[in-house]
Amino acid sequence: MPANADRFLLELFAIFVWAKVFGEVFEQFSLPGVLGEILAGVFLGPHATRLVIPSESVGSLAEVGAIFLLFTVGLETRPLELIRVGRTSIRVAVAGIVAPFVLGFGYLMLRGEPSHESIFVAAAMIATSVGITARVLSDLDALNTRSAKIILGAAVFDDILGMIVLTIVTGVASGGKVQWLHIGVLIAEALSFAFFMIFIGPRIVRGMRPGLERMSTHDAPLILALAICLGLSVAATKIGMAAIIGAFFAGLVFADYAPEWGLAPRAHAINEFLAPFFFFIMGSRLDLAMFNRSVLIDAAVISVLAILSKVVACGFPVLSEGRRAALQVGVGMTPRGEVALIVALIGLQMNVISQQAYAVVIIMTAVTTLFAPLVLRYLFRDEPTDSTGAPAVTEEVERSSLG
Amino acid sequence: MPANADRFLLELFAIFVWAKVFGEVFEQFSLPGVLGEILAGVFLGPHATRLVIPSESVGSLAEVGAIFLLFTVGLETRPLELIRVGRTSIRVAVAGIVAPFVLGFGYLMLRGEPSHESIFVAAAMIATSVGITARVLSDLDALNTRSAKIILGAAVFDDILGMIVLTIVTGVASGGKVQWLHIGVLIAEALSFAFFMIFIGPRIVRGMRPGLERMSTHDAPLILALAICLGLSVAATKIGMAAIIGAFFAGLVFADYAPEWGLAPRAHAINEFLAPFFFFIMGSRLDLAMFNRSVLIDAAVISVLAILSKVVACGFPVLSEGRRAALQVGVGMTPRGEVALIVALIGLQMNVISQQAYAVVIIMTAVTTLFAPLVLRYLFRDEPTDSTGAPAVTEEVERSSLG
Repeated sequence: MPANADRFLLELFAIFVWAKVFGEVFEQFSLPGVLGEILAGVFLGPHATRLVIPSESVGSLAEVGAIFLLFTVGLETRPLELIRVGRTSIRVAVAGIVAPFVLGFGYLMLRGEPSHESIFVAAAMIATSVGITARVLSDLDALNTRSAKIILGAAVFDDILGMIVLTIVTGVASGGKVQWLHIGVLIAEALSFAFFMIFIGPRIVRGMRPGLERMSTHDAPLILALAICLGLSVAATKIGMAAIIGAFFAGLVFADYAPEWGLAPRAHAINEFLAPFFFFIMGSRLDLAMFNRSVLIDAAVISVLAILSKVVACGFPVLSEGRRAALQVGVGMTPRGEVALIVALIGLQMNVISQQAYAVVIIMTAVTTLFAPLVLRYLFRDEPTDSTGAPAVTEEVERSSLG
Repeated sequence: MPANADRFLLELFAIFVWAKVFGEVFEQFSLPGVLGEILAGVFLGPHATRLVIPSESVGSLAEVGAIFLLFTVGLETRPLELIRVGRTSIRVAVAGIVAPFVLGFGYLMLRGEPSHESIFVAAAMIATSVGITARVLSDLDALNTRSAKIILGAAVFDDILGMIVLTIVTGVASGGKVQWLHIGVLIAEALSFAFFMIFIGPRIVRGMRPGLERMSTHDAPLILALAICLGLSVAATKIGMAAIIGAFFAGLVFADYAPEWGLAPRAHAINEFLAPFFFFIMGSRLDLAMFNRSVLIDAAVISVLAILSKVVACGFPVLSEGRRAALQVGVGMTPRGEVALIVALIGLQMNVISQQAYAVVIIMTAVTTLFAPLVLRYLFRDEPTDSTGAPAVTEEVERSSLG
């Protein structure tokens, strides 16, 4: 094989192994492995030790990694459960979107930052990380509690709302100046896309079922799901949305049949291979030289605002069920993850946010991700589980990702 | 996201969908889907309609696809079964390697082709495609027959011998002229590598088992297997072997624990996503303008030699068990597949074989792949299955790839 193919393989090997070694060290200290993978990129990447300078091809692989990450989250999100979880979850989600955005945007504008940058950082503060939340609740054996169900339902709405906000924010930033008509069109497009994917997409898949099972292609449902994942990612970019939104909806559309067709564990395997490249590349873009005093102050304030806004705003709609439940839901909604990092990365790629603002978002993600597991462990002590309810969405997630 | 990321996604979508649509059409006519995927590349690629011009990043993805293809084949090959299947399989394999190579090389030298090119095309005629053989036998419900077991055992030895031949051939071609000392070192390296991977590698994995199960990283066995797959691919290139050989041995080393850790279906999922890019790119390198009269004559003769040499040479060691068994084994060993195409592609990349010779190998692969299923169907009619024997290796393969 030619030498550049060999170098590409060596690069893949180095990134995969370093990301996983850092991840395992973090896990050993009961810290989220994903932070280790990002830090591997920070320390080995071009801005620090320069041991691994990712090529453009690895960058492309990382993009596909982001697609599959959100596709997997979508597969774990059943449309009917989305529709059914009721008003509590929606109220928690909406409050949990408005509060961090307003607080983050307000603070950054007061600090005199440019408005585009303030909007992007505030948007990155919105979305709760379903993956991290679910993983933590499962580790605590608390998936069947009522609070857990409210959190998971809200996290799902939160994800969609966060994606719509991302669409608006991306549209605003790429338009140069705020064009409200354009935003209106974008909102209409995003809502139509979301509506179609939640209500009509799953029916189409159901209708295709007999045909799929007659197909001669080996493993037709997985192939179709992968094709639709790539197709909706492309479609999303065509109407001005982020590709990952399309990938998320592709997962959502297949979520009802994911167990029957064994899609989740296999999408998860692809994810397991590709995601480390995404997180490593994400870290490798972070310039440590940017961690000056001003960044650290901003990061500290933004992190505190990110935590407080979710705890208070998401806890409030649940306050009628007692202070403990309110705190459980509030704290459960604090972790930010992939979506925040993706929002920041898009901002960086569009040149609308600075290296400093990118660093602030990464620190905020790290702090909120570390905060939730520690506090949730305390809040869910001796919690009686609600055994009458239907099993929570994430049980299947955990099973499939362990299977 | 930046425009080139969008274009990359569109490219992935187009290639994946076209490859699968062509594959499904072929399957509908009971032809192997893989041929459809290659022809999609031929017809849509830069040498024909130019609808899809693959970028360098997709080329890199295709290389990773080849790695996972051979990794999956390795996962289906248990070292102990390799060691145990006995002399019949080894004799079938050795005869099935020598005969096609000698006949192919002899014919091409007589035709006055350059010796490097003759060696490469002859080497491409060697390796039986385990995947296609297993798939056909499973479709015929003939996996438990004694002939099937001999074929599968032989196909595995054949694969390893074929890979050693590929190493020698690659070494010869890249050395410029035939250096026998160098070849001796290559053989020693390849044999040591193979010996280590068959006898020692699996023990190391067994020894790592308790540690692996204590690891905090989610799904540690899959992560380790992926890391070792990339690592051995790199290692193989470092000692002058093809990367895919390392990937094959990485699979072999994990084969014993693949069912317990559920590795096969998940490696298969990664394969399902990446392989179409590999086959499409493979087809896209084929220039249809090269199909002149001389190519077609060569292709016809090479195809006939490829079939006759396997049927006669592989059937001969089994002749004592009756003519039907001999024919079953001989015909069962005829399909050539991935390995032949990879050998030809490496030759093309090293500039030691011409577009014409590449076209000859692709046609030969197509002809042998079409020949076997048609004739095997007839030869295995009303075959009593050997229910006393241990289940054949491929049963698990089929189960896992369907699961």
